[in-house]
Amino acid sequence: MTRFGVLEDSITELAVNAADEAIEDSGSVGNEIDYLIVGSQNPAEFTGVDHLSTLLADYLGVVPAAATRVETGPSSGASAFEEAFALIKAGLADLILVIGVEKMSEVERSTASSILAKMMSYENETRYGATPAALAAMMARRYMHDYGLTREQLSLVPAKAHENGSKNPLAHFQKVITPQQVSDSRTVADPLTLFDCCPTSDGAAAAVVASEEMVRKLNLMDSAAEIAAIGHATDYLAVQHRQSLTSMKATVEAGNRAYTMANMGPNDIDVCEVHDAFSVFELIDMEDLGFAERGKAIHLVQEGYSQVNGTLPVNPTGGLKARGHPTAATGLAQIRDAFDQLIQNAPKALQVESPEVALCHNIGGFGNNMVVTILKR
Amino acid sequence: MTRFGVLEDSITELAVNAADEAIEDSGSVGNEIDYLIVGSQNPAEFTGVDHLSTLLADYLGVVPAAATRVETGPSSGASAFEEAFALIKAGLADLILVIGVEKMSEVERSTASSILAKMMSYENETRYGATPAALAAMMARRYMHDYGLTREQLSLVPAKAHENGSKNPLAHFQKVITPQQVSDSRTVADPLTLFDCCPTSDGAAAAVVASEEMVRKLNLMDSAAEIAAIGHATDYLAVQHRQSLTSMKATVEAGNRAYTMANMGPNDIDVCEVHDAFSVFELIDMEDLGFAERGKAIHLVQEGYSQVNGTLPVNPTGGLKARGHPTAATGLAQIRDAFDQLIQNAPKALQVESPEVALCHNIGGFGNNMVVTILKR
Repeated sequence: MTRFGVLEDSITELAVNAADEAIEDSGSVGNEIDYLIVGSQNPAEFTGVDHLSTLLADYLGVVPAAATRVETGPSSGASAFEEAFALIKAGLADLILVIGVEKMSEVERSTASSILAKMMSYENETRYGATPAALAAMMARRYMHDYGLTREQLSLVPAKAHENGSKNPLAHFQKVITPQQVSDSRTVADPLTLFDCCPTSDGAAAAVVASEEMVRKLNLMDSAAEIAAIGHATDYLAVQHRQSLTSMKATVEAGNRAYTMANMGPNDIDVCEVHDAFSVFELIDMEDLGFAERGKAIHLVQEGYSQVNGTLPVNPTGGLKARGHPTAATGLAQIRDAFDQLIQNAPKALQVESPEVALCHNIGGFGNNMVVTILKR
Repeated sequence: MTRFGVLEDSITELAVNAADEAIEDSGSVGNEIDYLIVGSQNPAEFTGVDHLSTLLADYLGVVPAAATRVETGPSSGASAFEEAFALIKAGLADLILVIGVEKMSEVERSTASSILAKMMSYENETRYGATPAALAAMMARRYMHDYGLTREQLSLVPAKAHENGSKNPLAHFQKVITPQQVSDSRTVADPLTLFDCCPTSDGAAAAVVASEEMVRKLNLMDSAAEIAAIGHATDYLAVQHRQSLTSMKATVEAGNRAYTMANMGPNDIDVCEVHDAFSVFELIDMEDLGFAERGKAIHLVQEGYSQVNGTLPVNPTGGLKARGHPTAATGLAQIRDAFDQLIQNAPKALQVESPEVALCHNIGGFGNNMVVTILKR
């Protein structure tokens, strides 16, 4: 992956840089790539560059590979990975390059907000002035009401993210912040402050997905991971139509599908990357994925359970909050970072002790269109 | 599928109408749909509606189905179908709803042209004023030079398309035109006239793709078709970087992949739908797919070989020229029309006699990113 942040590189340069590194690392240089799958949410709107899969097939020198773009909003990276998984599992391909890329800083902040707002329900939300942060604030408020979460407790979550991000040389934010700074930063949508919200970033991440036969041929059986499962599910578009404000049903459903496919449960997970677009999401994600009881995730955070050296490290590389969130790149960055954990290749201070199974959770709309990926050594 | 044309319906209405019909026709009403795959090229740019898969999962009542949008330019419909094929073949799903939709008439014609121009190479083509029609005209001119094709001969192709379209109640154009009218219509890019070019249209088409087990469960073994193969390939982005102006290498490659997978050859095809965005493409497609020798496709057109009652009917329902071309809907309309041919459900005057195997050829850029689908009774 590239560094995440506000970057000079164009969207195609970001994609090519991440892809070149993935091809090189995978040892698949010179082998024929069957498919190129590109996850990107709004390339045309953010950058004016469109038809990204067709264009990148040329730029990357993988013609005549089949090339497809996949879009599920901010989970586009994980969905692209899912299509690669399906193509390999179906026997339709042996070697696939998957890229997740977004370049969000070329447009004005207000334009970026308008582009991102399209993931909400226009009829029920956007036209009444709702923003993603406003909806997340409603969820946080309800969560506080139901479970007694305090502002001070919630501030521990972004502080942990920044703590990890400070040790990740590719993170958008590499500065430690205190819980007090989170609480004291300016309000975005009460009770959420600036430091509860992930940034908009530029960046790309890539992966090479191959059949077992190809992995053997490349002599990579010792440094590859297996895709144990991918679960994917939606919920109703408008938050008001959903069953709960303190749980995201699509996560529960996608998680259950993934656990069933992998024949595993939450206890089998050694490290995870969850979609903490807003701080309260990290708590809800942990509960929806079965890592914590309802309303109790914050206790695990307080006890250090989710820290790098804890029982279940959550977002050891900084999460969306600190690693950054170039929307479609996030899903593949999660997978890339989880993979690095499994092959003991994470930054030293962030390496979890001998994880065997990693889970990634990527959200594709506002609390919708979730993709849960389980990787196994 | 909906009717194609300049329509009042919104993009979501089009998608829902086609999808409802597909679900109803497939007899899968009430069964759980695992995945919704939506092919759409530029929904946000053409209509302002984005995150189409997430939104349609809600509108169609298929929540919590996984929902993904697939984009490969004008072959997005066929690529969406390809993802469904992979998911079913991988055993990851049993019942998938696939939709191809585009609503192009909400924006001004010049805006639509700018949106469509993004499928060409900016560096090598667009910034020098090239348009899709201009590039197609270069190809036509070279084809005429190399093979002696005349303007009068070329006019037979759109005339055949309109002849078929006149009998297709869902076609954008249902009016017969004479070859002379094609030759006499105004020049768009010399030697191509207005009637050599397909229109921009609104419309949607949908299909239900299921595992064999699900087809049995639905008691549809007698009215289903098998996806025998899908081939998909790219070429260099800029036409000037390609090997030929009179052949599209990505078609040859995608066709070969499909033939190999299906263990078939051009002679096994009983009916086909090819991507005739410009009249000369139909001739080139026929040659690239192995239906005609180089430079000789026009003779087959002249001999009636490619007419509805000919040896190999080409675009019996009117093709892009007459059925219309709502970009991402085209690939699925081709598949839908080919399927209708196989189950003897085409409009009476357009029904080919007992076809067993149908081929669909969908172009995803300017002469790039091809998807070839072979269906079998």
